[in-house]
Amino acid sequence: MPEPGVFYGVGVGPGDPELLTLKALRTLKAASVIAVPKSSDGGSSRALSILKGVMDISGKEVMELLFPMTKDKALLGASRADAASRIACALNEGKDVAFITLGDPMLYSTFSYLVPLVRERSGAGVRVIPGITSFSAGAARLCLPLAESDERIIIIPAAHDIGEIKKALEGFDTVILMKVNREIDRLIDLLCAEGLDGNAMFFSRAGWPDEEVVSCGVRELKGRRLDYFSTIIVKRNP
Amino acid sequence: MPEPGVFYGVGVGPGDPELLTLKALRTLKAASVIAVPKSSDGGSSRALSILKGVMDISGKEVMELLFPMTKDKALLGASRADAASRIACALNEGKDVAFITLGDPMLYSTFSYLVPLVRERSGAGVRVIPGITSFSAGAARLCLPLAESDERIIIIPAAHDIGEIKKALEGFDTVILMKVNREIDRLIDLLCAEGLDGNAMFFSRAGWPDEEVVSCGVRELKGRRLDYFSTIIVKRNP
Repeated sequence: MPEPGVFYGVGVGPGDPELLTLKALRTLKAASVIAVPKSSDGGSSRALSILKGVMDISGKEVMELLFPMTKDKALLGASRADAASRIACALNEGKDVAFITLGDPMLYSTFSYLVPLVRERSGAGVRVIPGITSFSAGAARLCLPLAESDERIIIIPAAHDIGEIKKALEGFDTVILMKVNREIDRLIDLLCAEGLDGNAMFFSRAGWPDEEVVSCGVRELKGRRLDYFSTIIVKRNP
Repeated sequence: MPEPGVFYGVGVGPGDPELLTLKALRTLKAASVIAVPKSSDGGSSRALSILKGVMDISGKEVMELLFPMTKDKALLGASRADAASRIACALNEGKDVAFITLGDPMLYSTFSYLVPLVRERSGAGVRVIPGITSFSAGAARLCLPLAESDERIIIIPAAHDIGEIKKALEGFDTVILMKVNREIDRLIDLLCAEGLDGNAMFFSRAGWPDEEVVSCGVRELKGRRLDYFSTIIVKRNP
């Protein structure tokens, strides 16, 4: 039996391939297997297209892993178990496996669900290479300070009920709403009702050729079909 | 009069020089002036020592800028005005100036205070290159997911009064306490009183040779003198 490989979680940032860190690029160049999450068979992986912007992946073993966009817990569990088994199999052959994730691997990523499952199936070590978050990239794009001095920030997924989001908007200097795509209409209604529409900024795929940035007021997005990886930042006192 | 240069805010991450992004490195290599914040005359700049880990700065004009650690508003204002004037002077000579900042330039950084002051003094454009935050690097180092699924995160500077921090600990899945160095004793008392000491993780200078990481319980840090750039993460359900 060879020594098991290392299981890497590598953040590739939100869109612009140049937002990979030097460490992420070095790790990905050295790994024999690149594990790539996809939400549908035959679909494309945004994380992989970011990677192709900075390195040649020919010669790499690309392991496509299917994670359907569903709330069906049994289906989710089965897809994660299957992915972990395939990853563990490669690790147990002595290969290093680098799982690429949009943004940062420790922030709302599939990678963190896989870690315990892979550990059950392999004695491999786990290492995480952090990535630029969507909100850091969006704030940079807009030159919008997320926080100064003693300001407080809340990061909240938009799926929370509207009362929770209203409380966040009332209580914090900066509110970062994650994964807003399915919730955009009710969020816009709330922001308008609170008089905060003009303080809200939207972005998806910051720094990518198909980026979308709305820097002043988001009501124009009502009824739109948006990218999964979309974020809104609201500043109480911009 | 030459065209003014561009004023760049460049995040260099929290410690490990390999956590610079490809874009940060390219920007810093191309800029003629590297502006370096320091807290004392004759002291060293951590941001600059990170940079020296990945590039040769000989041949660059290094502009040292003094920002004393003080709450005296007049003194702070004067030091920022002086820095902005020196930066604007270089920009107006047509030089690109890259101001390096620990972590991310849009998160608790001096850079965001300088932007309006530099704009008053120069017609230069401003661009921001995001950086890896201390908490992303710390979470990666510990393989600690900051948030999964619909979990909510609060980012709060430790200078807030203890009641505010208690409320944060009671209400959130993940609490990121920034700049904990001066507050460490009262934070540890609070964490112990709330039964959360075992859920708290401390780190400073993640990935740097002199990094300090305490992954399980922080009470051992009581009474210690800590680095300015220190962070605690508390997970309610780790």
